[in-house]
Amino acid sequence: MSDISGKVNLKEAFGKFADHWRPRVVGRVNDFEVKVAKLEGEFVWHHHEEEDELFFVVKGMLRLLFKDREEVRLDEGEFMVVPRGVEHLPIADEEVWVMLFEPSGTRNTGNLTNERTVDPEDL
Amino acid sequence: MSDISGKVNLKEAFGKFADHWRPRVVGRVNDFEVKVAKLEGEFVWHHHEEEDELFFVVKGMLRLLFKDREEVRLDEGEFMVVPRGVEHLPIADEEVWVMLFEPSGTRNTGNLTNERTVDPEDL
Repeated sequence: MSDISGKVNLKEAFGKFADHWRPRVVGRVNDFEVKVAKLEGEFVWHHHEEEDELFFVVKGMLRLLFKDREEVRLDEGEFMVVPRGVEHLPIADEEVWVMLFEPSGTRNTGNLTNERTVDPEDL
Repeated sequence: MSDISGKVNLKEAFGKFADHWRPRVVGRVNDFEVKVAKLEGEFVWHHHEEEDELFFVVKGMLRLLFKDREEVRLDEGEFMVVPRGVEHLPIADEEVWVMLFEPSGTRNTGNLTNERTVDPEDL
């Protein structure tokens, strides 16, 4: 049996940080993690080899661009699962707050390693 | 590579049904499922042998009762992970809309089989 870790208030979780593109782990469900992140500007094209990735927009509007289909615009209260293997580019024209749901250990930049890569161990 | 299934608008998803305690699958992330459910009244004491279960309140207030600790009240925008093995009793004094994250195949009544049990295959 795991420990009970109490409840999480999303607004409070977002209130604890201000930087962009650096997800914070706020919950664990078996071998999955719930993360919150603030996004602003354009990220990098990338994909995840093994992990599907759920983007849920808590505040603002997120654009997800794909190589072979039209972009998807996610408003508050909307989510999308980007399947493993699919190249995507998240763009936040203005600040967006997202909740992410993905397997533990998923790297934010997927197949890429660059200055925006955050080691999952540090989250 | 999985197919891209498009975005999900939570309000629309909740608008498609009216019954209580019967979760609908609205997304899949690897071997996990995202479900939405409307709850009203008292459920049944149960636990899940292997599965942690995340309750995220989209609308209303959900009470989670436990055998050995104080109840937790989840308001809109709050979530809690009930670890596997932990007996819990969800109570919605008025209608509550929840989003659930849990491993695929998780049964709503966990270790119990009764008139409220929904076969995961039917979701």
